[in-house]
Amino acid sequence: MISVVIVGTGNVAQNLYQAFEKSNDVTIKQVIGRNREHLAFVKNNIAVSTTFNDIATADIYILAISDDAIKLVADNFKNTDGILAHTSGATSLEALKSAQRPGIFYPLQTFTKGKIISFYEIPICVEATNEDDLNLLKQLGETLSNTVVEIDSEQRKTLHVAAVFVNNFTNYMYTIGSEICEEHKINFKLLQPLIKETAAKLDTLTPLQAQTGPAKRGDQQTLHNHLQIIKDKHQRELYTLLSNSIKEKHGKKL
Amino acid sequence: MISVVIVGTGNVAQNLYQAFEKSNDVTIKQVIGRNREHLAFVKNNIAVSTTFNDIATADIYILAISDDAIKLVADNFKNTDGILAHTSGATSLEALKSAQRPGIFYPLQTFTKGKIISFYEIPICVEATNEDDLNLLKQLGETLSNTVVEIDSEQRKTLHVAAVFVNNFTNYMYTIGSEICEEHKINFKLLQPLIKETAAKLDTLTPLQAQTGPAKRGDQQTLHNHLQIIKDKHQRELYTLLSNSIKEKHGKKL
Repeated sequence: MISVVIVGTGNVAQNLYQAFEKSNDVTIKQVIGRNREHLAFVKNNIAVSTTFNDIATADIYILAISDDAIKLVADNFKNTDGILAHTSGATSLEALKSAQRPGIFYPLQTFTKGKIISFYEIPICVEATNEDDLNLLKQLGETLSNTVVEIDSEQRKTLHVAAVFVNNFTNYMYTIGSEICEEHKINFKLLQPLIKETAAKLDTLTPLQAQTGPAKRGDQQTLHNHLQIIKDKHQRELYTLLSNSIKEKHGKKL
Repeated sequence: MISVVIVGTGNVAQNLYQAFEKSNDVTIKQVIGRNREHLAFVKNNIAVSTTFNDIATADIYILAISDDAIKLVADNFKNTDGILAHTSGATSLEALKSAQRPGIFYPLQTFTKGKIISFYEIPICVEATNEDDLNLLKQLGETLSNTVVEIDSEQRKTLHVAAVFVNNFTNYMYTIGSEICEEHKINFKLLQPLIKETAAKLDTLTPLQAQTGPAKRGDQQTLHNHLQIIKDKHQRELYTLLSNSIKEKHGKKL
């Protein structure tokens, strides 16, 4: 049985809480959050705290808080014996240097307010400064997920950049798609099967193989027609830049 | 029972063929393709032709061919009585003006070579020049899909632009993500659950609501760190442009 303290009340904290709470291999000893109202999701039989004055004893302390708070909050855990692990993709192990046993427990997923998702297929990236701590973090990860990988801080930061492209920027492509639909009174929901299939294609193809569309085909007429339709200056700029990138990549390599 | 002739042997043609072939409400009278080898997917009991000299009689002729071939191929159907419908998102009804009964039968999906997908959830956009033809195309669509919508040529072209953003450009974001992973020897498959969840979020949220990430949060430190990691000039340019766009959109509206 692994005991944990969760620090934070945001989407990651709540998702981890729900997952650990269901697990027979993990006990949540305490949840710490600044705001008592935000701790309302915690069941009555689990301790909560709004300060760092009475931190419970646990094997692992999980900081599921915003990136810029990690360093400051970590200072409260100088004297705890357990592993102090943060859940950030973009923050190095260095940020926890005040801790005796720093670690990383980074679930590679996008968490949405009010939506509890299954961790089973979510890769959990772990890092620590010694083999024992690494094993304990791996063990904790394996209570949730079938994919626990050891990734160092440099690789994790790079993975986070890639995640920004495939998640944040992709969602921005959806945003523009929805704006174009809205402007022309078309139901954006019509595009949803296409959006899902675009993601599902990666089960069997690399993104390079999966590329389709007028830019890939070098279909100048359609590219020209599309630019006639797009009125927004910023959308036009993006359309041109991305189409040229795709043309260049596929013109050279295929 | 609706009878069809399919013209074309590409991904759309093959997917339509497989779907119609399974349907009890549709008979495929003939498949026409220039190249006999490419017609190999057609069962022995269905007629094939490599020319337009002996077009079978059918209720609907479906041109599932490349955009730039539509006009030329349509000329072969001047004297047929059935509806002549193309499957292109980017081509207007005008391109079929030589036909007596022009129409559109546009399945809004990305089709991949060798991958047969279910049409059930794929929206099929139909258009015709009279009510009877429209109804027949709708009826044909309903044999395959639970979403058949009447959309005029202008709206369809706009929908196609939106599709380029959410499909082609999204796939290009995946491509960059995979390049970043490859460069740093990280398994791109780790990002797949994230990619799928990014798409799945749209079941319950608008893309504007679903936006997350350092640009959305205005997290300058992470944006700066990411630009230190990205070496490729083109990727840096895209990262900056898209981050600024997200910052601007969410800075203004939220």
